[in-house]
Amino acid sequence: MTQPILIDCDPGIDDAVALLLAFAAPELEILGITTVAGNVPLDLTQANARKICTLANRTDIPVYAGCPRPMLRSLITAEAVHGQTGLGEGLLPDPTVPLQPQHAVEALVQTLLNTPQPVTLATLGPLTNLALALIQAPQIATHIDEIVMMGGAVTHGNVTPSAEFNIAVDPHAAHVVFTSGIPITLLGLDATHQVLTTQERLAAMRAIATPITDKITTLLTQYGTLDQERYGLMGGPLHDPNVIAYLIQPSLYKGKPCHVEVELTSPISLGRTVVDWWNLSGRPTNATVIDAIDADGFYNLLLERLAQL
Amino acid sequence: MTQPILIDCDPGIDDAVALLLAFAAPELEILGITTVAGNVPLDLTQANARKICTLANRTDIPVYAGCPRPMLRSLITAEAVHGQTGLGEGLLPDPTVPLQPQHAVEALVQTLLNTPQPVTLATLGPLTNLALALIQAPQIATHIDEIVMMGGAVTHGNVTPSAEFNIAVDPHAAHVVFTSGIPITLLGLDATHQVLTTQERLAAMRAIATPITDKITTLLTQYGTLDQERYGLMGGPLHDPNVIAYLIQPSLYKGKPCHVEVELTSPISLGRTVVDWWNLSGRPTNATVIDAIDADGFYNLLLERLAQL
Amino acid sequence: MTQPILIDCDPGIDDAVALLLAFAAPELEILGITTVAGNVPLDLTQANARKICTLANRTDIPVYAGCPRPMLRSLITAEAVHGQTGLGEGLLPDPTVPLQPQHAVEALVQTLLNTPQPVTLATLGPLTNLALALIQAPQIATHIDEIVMMGGAVTHGNVTPSAEFNIAVDPHAAHVVFTSGIPITLLGLDATHQVLTTQERLAAMRAIATPITDKITTLLTQYGTLDQERYGLMGGPLHDPNVIAYLIQPSLYKGKPCHVEVELTSPISLGRTVVDWWNLSGRPTNATVIDAIDADGFYNLLLERLAQL
Amino acid sequence: MTQPILIDCDPGIDDAVALLLAFAAPELEILGITTVAGNVPLDLTQANARKICTLANRTDIPVYAGCPRPMLRSLITAEAVHGQTGLGEGLLPDPTVPLQPQHAVEALVQTLLNTPQPVTLATLGPLTNLALALIQAPQIATHIDEIVMMGGAVTHGNVTPSAEFNIAVDPHAAHVVFTSGIPITLLGLDATHQVLTTQERLAAMRAIATPITDKITTLLTQYGTLDQERYGLMGGPLHDPNVIAYLIQPSLYKGKPCHVEVELTSPISLGRTVVDWWNLSGRPTNATVIDAIDADGFYNLLLERLAQL
Repeated sequence: MTQPILIDCDPGIDDAVALLLAFAAPELEILGITTVAGNVPLDLTQANARKICTLANRTDIPVYAGCPRPMLRSLITAEAVHGQTGLGEGLLPDPTVPLQPQHAVEALVQTLLNTPQPVTLATLGPLTNLALALIQAPQIATHIDEIVMMGGAVTHGNVTPSAEFNIAVDPHAAHVVFTSGIPITLLGLDATHQVLTTQERLAAMRAIATPITDKITTLLTQYGTLDQERYGLMGGPLHDPNVIAYLIQPSLYKGKPCHVEVELTSPISLGRTVVDWWNLSGRPTNATVIDAIDADGFYNLLLERLAQL
Repeated sequence: MTQPILIDCDPGIDDAVALLLAFAAPELEILGITTVAGNVPLDLTQANARKICTLANRTDIPVYAGCPRPMLRSLITAEAVHGQTGLGEGLLPDPTVPLQPQHAVEALVQTLLNTPQPVTLATLGPLTNLALALIQAPQIATHIDEIVMMGGAVTHGNVTPSAEFNIAVDPHAAHVVFTSGIPITLLGLDATHQVLTTQERLAAMRAIATPITDKITTLLTQYGTLDQERYGLMGGPLHDPNVIAYLIQPSLYKGKPCHVEVELTSPISLGRTVVDWWNLSGRPTNATVIDAIDADGFYNLLLERLAQL
Repeated sequence: MTQPILIDCDPGIDDAVALLLAFAAPELEILGITTVAGNVPLDLTQANARKICTLANRTDIPVYAGCPRPMLRSLITAEAVHGQTGLGEGLLPDPTVPLQPQHAVEALVQTLLNTPQPVTLATLGPLTNLALALIQAPQIATHIDEIVMMGGAVTHGNVTPSAEFNIAVDPHAAHVVFTSGIPITLLGLDATHQVLTTQERLAAMRAIATPITDKITTLLTQYGTLDQERYGLMGGPLHDPNVIAYLIQPSLYKGKPCHVEVELTSPISLGRTVVDWWNLSGRPTNATVIDAIDADGFYNLLLERLAQL
Repeated sequence: MTQPILIDCDPGIDDAVALLLAFAAPELEILGITTVAGNVPLDLTQANARKICTLANRTDIPVYAGCPRPMLRSLITAEAVHGQTGLGEGLLPDPTVPLQPQHAVEALVQTLLNTPQPVTLATLGPLTNLALALIQAPQIATHIDEIVMMGGAVTHGNVTPSAEFNIAVDPHAAHVVFTSGIPITLLGLDATHQVLTTQERLAAMRAIATPITDKITTLLTQYGTLDQERYGLMGGPLHDPNVIAYLIQPSLYKGKPCHVEVELTSPISLGRTVVDWWNLSGRPTNATVIDAIDADGFYNLLLERLAQL
């Protein structure tokens, strides 16, 4: 039996890989793709989602545009990592998949209320769309069986010393989601920095030599550059595809149920995911925080599946 | 020429008087009434709005239900002031006006984008609906010529030492509105505590002796009790109808353009409208803060108009 | 019987008038004057305190220099109000009163512990010295019968929209004092803006025509200018002397015991004295907040006493 | 040439080991020991410091009592880790070393100003004493060549999810120290949790079999219990002695100069040391943050030196 999912994203290079991995997962039934401002502005993220669908010939999946701005903060984008358009210049085909007329927030509400079984949400970007849906129509919470989220950092952030990009862009939306009572599996930087696009792994991906892996390898080569320079890592951390890999093969991931709260108050800590790893606060757990990934297992899965597209 | 307006409210007794005053204003064209959780939960505020429309036989005005909860905070309600249902027990007729199927947030967006001329927003409750509309569809801002808002306090709050009810319920929504660039006229407690339901004024209202003023006088008599006891005033402050009175006869009101910022950070100040009355910060003005009301003029207008319903 | 007092101050023009009024009060026994950075830096405030003692020939009162900086914030000064030196250029004699070698914090602790009866603290500036004494030696609290404090604002601040100068300079010190359990009488801007140096009052002061009133009238004429321009008032608010006038003739002042908390968290509210005037929080009262002053009575007292110096 | 140092501490079991290690370091000249409320209240920490001096027969070192409370927060203590008295019941001799009459804050100021060469500060507890000295007499900063501090946490705290004990007790004092411009070497939990009192190491310590190591091994056996249970570690982290070990043999420690800011604003992050490890903020470095310790080298040093006492 397949698991129905909605993918909320802001493509973005690693989002693109995540979408392709989802397309290659017969385990998952993708009910829709909702987009949000994040890595690049909304006009680009919705177009990029449609470009990826076009590239993989998945014209059956509805794509929606959502919120062009975070709830309270001004929009931060990440062109330094993802390039000016978010998916390279002229590399991908113009989208032939149409943009749905409905707003992503309304699409989330309607899809969740109208799907007979509970839906899993895979969130790859800032959480503005989901938060607004939860505020407008809190009854959707019981229609979501799990949120698998890329976001957050415990030790070091990548936007500020405290905050990871997806949460930093819209920490208030993250707060709404973390206090919603919906079970969350959290893949933050402490985990995703274990999953690097090393030269060896990129070479293996390039060796698959399909039109899709050709383009993806080109994008990922560019993608790793900044992170390698900034952090002295051996490659770029492939954040978002872990959300999909977790849904396909959860045994690759280890973690612990913890209480997680998003820091909203202080400028220097804004957007930190405060994880009560040792249960010092005694507060109830609301997220399974992943702290270890089988990185080779992840890349094996990713390459095996991309090869099938 | 009439001014098109949308009324966003959470009835509540003083909201009810405001709605009736708006119904008695040929100067205003009411495009719709959107409701929100506030004085009482959403189920009651939307029903109460429809009861008032039914009472005044205004079946032409569409009524929408909006957000049942604030953006980030847990809902606070005010049954101690407005009674358990918000509009008395068994006093008003069951509503015959239907609830529109569209969500209030979507109704705000669609109405604003589809009305040929700019619309004035009269906000009588927490600003959750308007804030969500601005986040989802920021382009609506240019379709609003003015927001006339009941909310805020400078000197003393009525929920906490710092915060007035409408802003205290959803300070984050208020922040979104105050940073939207839309011109705001602000009627806060420092102004509305000048407009009291004294015995003399209630007697004059009762003397009109229409079915509507009979019911309203009954509600207002109850309404004043708590505030009188709490603040030692000579009657209850009739907050919300000032928004409509301002739109009909602005010469009753005096104020000053100021920079206003909503306090979001600190528990003890949360929801205060920080007004830079002396322009100490040099920041640009974003609201005209009303500090003086011609209270007798207001009651003259109110009674004259209510008598015509 | 006279009341032993310690005066903690940052002269400053209105501090100077307060000191002179205290010198003219046989009701008070001044055990010492401690100085702090505030209106001008510490080097100037300690010298100014000694200049005033020299002017009035009060060589018997020990003057101490205290903290040159606030607890956490960077020092803010108020030369725009008090002039570059804090007490005019060349107007006052060089001090012949020596500076005591002991630090003001240590002097506060030793004086309080060694005085047989409880001491009243008259605080006219930022509260850094007193706060540090309370942190180092909390046992002094039981040796203070009352703090009469000039500081704070409820409606509008004079440094930021929220904060009055003395509290704005060192809000953390104010927090230590307000949570010390010592009874406080609070004279903030809502009160002291009722006590203006009108032309008529300055003329009456000048008419006394002693060497001291000559100099003071000159200083006060300059002092009122900025505040008149900024606030559109009919004169400058004579803040600090009210502390001494309250000690001499408390019947000039009306107020109410309230819970007061100093805002420390939020940049836009930092240093506000949050006064729970309506007791909405149910927290215990820790300060009598003065909200009304008999302004003419105050000036009568001030002129009568200054004439005797 | 020996390095003059002042040790500010709150003994506590690991403080006691640190003091003994310092006594066994001819490289260091101990100018004084100042005590503060922390692991246990001040009455106990000052007595415990004197007990350790008595145990090691170091009657030449002056011991001072300092602040019995943090700057703003209420005192938190750690009897669960250190036992009711902080150093066991009846294990150590009554102190014969006297308590100096001077307050520790004054002692810090006077010692620093009167020592011909710059002094190193070894801080093992909450930073209240040092912060108050810096506020009262900022000129002492230029008399301190380095602060070596046990405190802080980046990944997980041990009092709250965000904060380590020493900083959590008085985060405002830590802020004063981190903004003082004095060079800091920071040994936080991310480092000290690498230095565990394993069974093997405790056995080696017991095997030294001097009266001092007998008592210390007994205390450390108790000390490790709670932390082992709480964190699932193989022993207790021996925090404070690393400060002294760093001064004796810095090559055991690796770190990086970073900007460090103490979180003061938010309840859930209060007291976190926000370390800008990747220099994302571009702010100037103010502390060398130790992230790696040669744990075996540390224990070799510790045992070798303790054996000589």
